[in-house]
Amino acid sequence: NGLVLVKNPHLDLMEEDVLYHLDLGTKTHNLPAMFGDIKFVCVGGSPNRMRAFAQFMQRELGLAAAGEDVADICAGSDRYAMYRAGPVLSISHGMGIPSISIMLHELIKLLHHAKCRDVTIIRIGTSGGLGIEAGSVVITDTAVDSSFQPRFEQVVLGDVVVRGTELDKDLAEELLACSRDIPDFPTLIGHTMCTYDFYEGQGRLDGALCSFSSEKKLEYLRRAYEAGVRNIEMESTAFAALCGLCGLKGESCRFHLL
Amino acid sequence: NGLVLVKNPHLDLMEEDVLYHLDLGTKTHNLPAMFGDIKFVCVGGSPNRMRAFAQFMQRELGLAAAGEDVADICAGSDRYAMYRAGPVLSISHGMGIPSISIMLHELIKLLHHAKCRDVTIIRIGTSGGLGIEAGSVVITDTAVDSSFQPRFEQVVLGDVVVRGTELDKDLAEELLACSRDIPDFPTLIGHTMCTYDFYEGQGRLDGALCSFSSEKKLEYLRRAYEAGVRNIEMESTAFAALCGLCGLKGESCRFHLL
Repeated sequence: NGLVLVKNPHLDLMEEDVLYHLDLGTKTHNLPAMFGDIKFVCVGGSPNRMRAFAQFMQRELGLAAAGEDVADICAGSDRYAMYRAGPVLSISHGMGIPSISIMLHELIKLLHHAKCRDVTIIRIGTSGGLGIEAGSVVITDTAVDSSFQPRFEQVVLGDVVVRGTELDKDLAEELLACSRDIPDFPTLIGHTMCTYDFYEGQGRLDGALCSFSSEKKLEYLRRAYEAGVRNIEMESTAFAALCGLCGLKGESCRFHLL
Repeated sequence: NGLVLVKNPHLDLMEEDVLYHLDLGTKTHNLPAMFGDIKFVCVGGSPNRMRAFAQFMQRELGLAAAGEDVADICAGSDRYAMYRAGPVLSISHGMGIPSISIMLHELIKLLHHAKCRDVTIIRIGTSGGLGIEAGSVVITDTAVDSSFQPRFEQVVLGDVVVRGTELDKDLAEELLACSRDIPDFPTLIGHTMCTYDFYEGQGRLDGALCSFSSEKKLEYLRRAYEAGVRNIEMESTAFAALCGLCGLKGESCRFHLL
């Protein structure tokens, strides 16, 4: 029926659900009235970029004049920022799997409480590209871990639970088709590698610690490329796993900066 | 000689070191002049709280009138916020190990470039307490992972490297001694458990996903308590490992909210 699924039998027994890190709640806010008509959710790391994206969407949808400001719906919390432009919600998630996971748990409950239907969620932002032209956009088919495996290991009460990380193939093709109308941005579909660390985890030579040579770094990145990886970032496996489990049509599009 | 260590032979060969997420760099900023006299670094998740802490320190040190504002040194980036009050630097790190790791790599290089000596770093903030009175402060002796082991598993080019997570015992005792002068805050030294997830990872029953019973949750938390864990949060193992490796005298003090 297109509703967003929560898989938690305890939620029905709770009198109130406080979405603590979003500064929203079922008793303090009328979530169906505020969010019931949301059809698209775009998420990205940086709060400033997600505000700029919401302003861009307002203009594109003819909802506001250029430069008009948007209000932060989560203004009472400095953990995340949230803006809306018509049926589009734009939310920041900070950096890394733990940070995006907290936001996604609360966002999924928000969409569930608001009785949203047929919601598409797209992660946008920047990433490190692998063997592709600078300025390319990578649309993720599958998120993989640092061993190039399509899995997300979630620790639940001390035990490791392995989850799948496939994203919506039809949505990826649809986004690729859209990209054909936009010149100057080479766009491709590929695997996205997700790491827990920006410096040592992604083979950077300029962190406070670095125990490997430039050759070892290149060998690792070559193996990643051969496994189908076209960009590297820090949230996609958790994003894919959570969206997949909760019935959200999800996709990750990253702009390759350097 | 009390200097902050970087363990990366590549850094000496670089013409410029851009501390990207802090919006600082060795060519764009005179780091020794800006930061050479820093002796204490306090870090915490929330940017607003770290600004309030810097303002508090300014007043305590007699450096500014109450209510006087402090400037965000990283204003050009919305990833982290940084303030200073005399010899004290106050920096936000967001939520989770990946987010604090990026900040710590760049902070350690900053202190190294600035030629700071004898720097003490203290993590402050809130956490979930375990079998302790609400409002207690937990000073961490050792950070442990979700299996209650004193280790931090860092993936380096796809391989797992295990690092120790002990914090400075003398500093912990010193902080405990300070706490005796402050009534109304029960303070104790204990282990701190660090997880990658706030909901399923910490046994919460109110996430979007929850596959365990209240009994299983309590059994896990009881085992954690028996292993010496007194509070739970999401950054301490990475904090302890990085500070230990780079010669920073480090400690984690968390205020137990609920």
